[in-house]
Amino acid sequence: MTRVRIDLFSSLDGYTSAGGSPENPMGEDWGLLTTAYVATRTVKERVFGDTSGTGTTGVDDAYAAASFEGIGAEIMGAAMFGLHSFPDDPGWKGWWGDEPPFGFPVYVLTSTAPRPEVEMRGGTSFRFRDASLDCVLAEASEAAGALDVRVGGGIGTARSFLRAGLVDDLHVAVAPVLLDRGHRVWEDLRGLERTHRMTSEVAESGTIHVTFSR
Amino acid sequence: MTRVRIDLFSSLDGYTSAGGSPENPMGEDWGLLTTAYVATRTVKERVFGDTSGTGTTGVDDAYAAASFEGIGAEIMGAAMFGLHSFPDDPGWKGWWGDEPPFGFPVYVLTSTAPRPEVEMRGGTSFRFRDASLDCVLAEASEAAGALDVRVGGGIGTARSFLRAGLVDDLHVAVAPVLLDRGHRVWEDLRGLERTHRMTSEVAESGTIHVTFSR
Repeated sequence: MTRVRIDLFSSLDGYTSAGGSPENPMGEDWGLLTTAYVATRTVKERVFGDTSGTGTTGVDDAYAAASFEGIGAEIMGAAMFGLHSFPDDPGWKGWWGDEPPFGFPVYVLTSTAPRPEVEMRGGTSFRFRDASLDCVLAEASEAAGALDVRVGGGIGTARSFLRAGLVDDLHVAVAPVLLDRGHRVWEDLRGLERTHRMTSEVAESGTIHVTFSR
Repeated sequence: MTRVRIDLFSSLDGYTSAGGSPENPMGEDWGLLTTAYVATRTVKERVFGDTSGTGTTGVDDAYAAASFEGIGAEIMGAAMFGLHSFPDDPGWKGWWGDEPPFGFPVYVLTSTAPRPEVEMRGGTSFRFRDASLDCVLAEASEAAGALDVRVGGGIGTARSFLRAGLVDDLHVAVAPVLLDRGHRVWEDLRGLERTHRMTSEVAESGTIHVTFSR
């Protein structure tokens, strides 16, 4: 049964990094939020191609590994794909090079930049959609088959799916830092603990892993 | 050595209950934030006079018990004392009845309602001060002797002391709820984790106890 999943990063005060420049698309506080994540063995291997076997193998790594497992399709917003950073480049193919680390269909939500599907190496295809969240999710679920659909971000897209009640599993890695700036991760989600069961677990790094599941 | 301590309640999204009416001074979300706290054996005994020995005795209770230990003086804002709710009552003596549960001097910050010291039963005295945070803290520390000074709140007063770098120990009980409204607990405290060591611990209730100490 396909589930809809989201993984987010937050500061203790509920912020995620505000989008930065084309040179630094994740924003300048992104490093503070992801210190423990990028230190895990899973991320070193799967994201950075570091197969030396170094990296942490504790609680942070368990959540990182889980976030990669069982995904059959992804949905992301136009900004996350980069359409807002490079609006005049009809050939823009995302931030991830010729062989993006997805390996499945990625549905990009855009009402302003429709374009044909782009097939990348390694099984990733970028499919641009101007449709309701429900419709895109139905298509992504179909594509995912027995696997799950991940709403990849950014934070606005993630919150839209959460507010619409379309998300089964939310994981937020709360970093032990106070940012006092950025986008609010939890905005307009009052009462989510009443529709989803919440758990919390503190990792060796001080990161608090919060999950909401139904 | 006197330390300056603060205990606060927050929702997962970083809000504390906005002040309510004179009939409900803590605001309507206060119950959601303090469910686990009022369920502890310590609070049942010390706040509600329930000596039946019921109540939780786990992690929440340990933090609750610690919050009562070793306090020799308190500082609170005018609103927490009730001066804003009852501005025209020069005989107002706080919310806590004839024998308030302090047992030590309580310094009330007020620039608009100076009044003589009020001696209550049980060792509590209310002392009204229109002075800088430093000056009031120096006086409270003197009064506390070898014990600690607690900044009792409200949230604005607590943040003022935190921002001024006057707080040694902050404990925040983060309740497993999303409020999406109220006063922001963490506002304007970017980088507190660099001046204070942060810890987190999840209680049986799902409350996340976060501490900052130096």
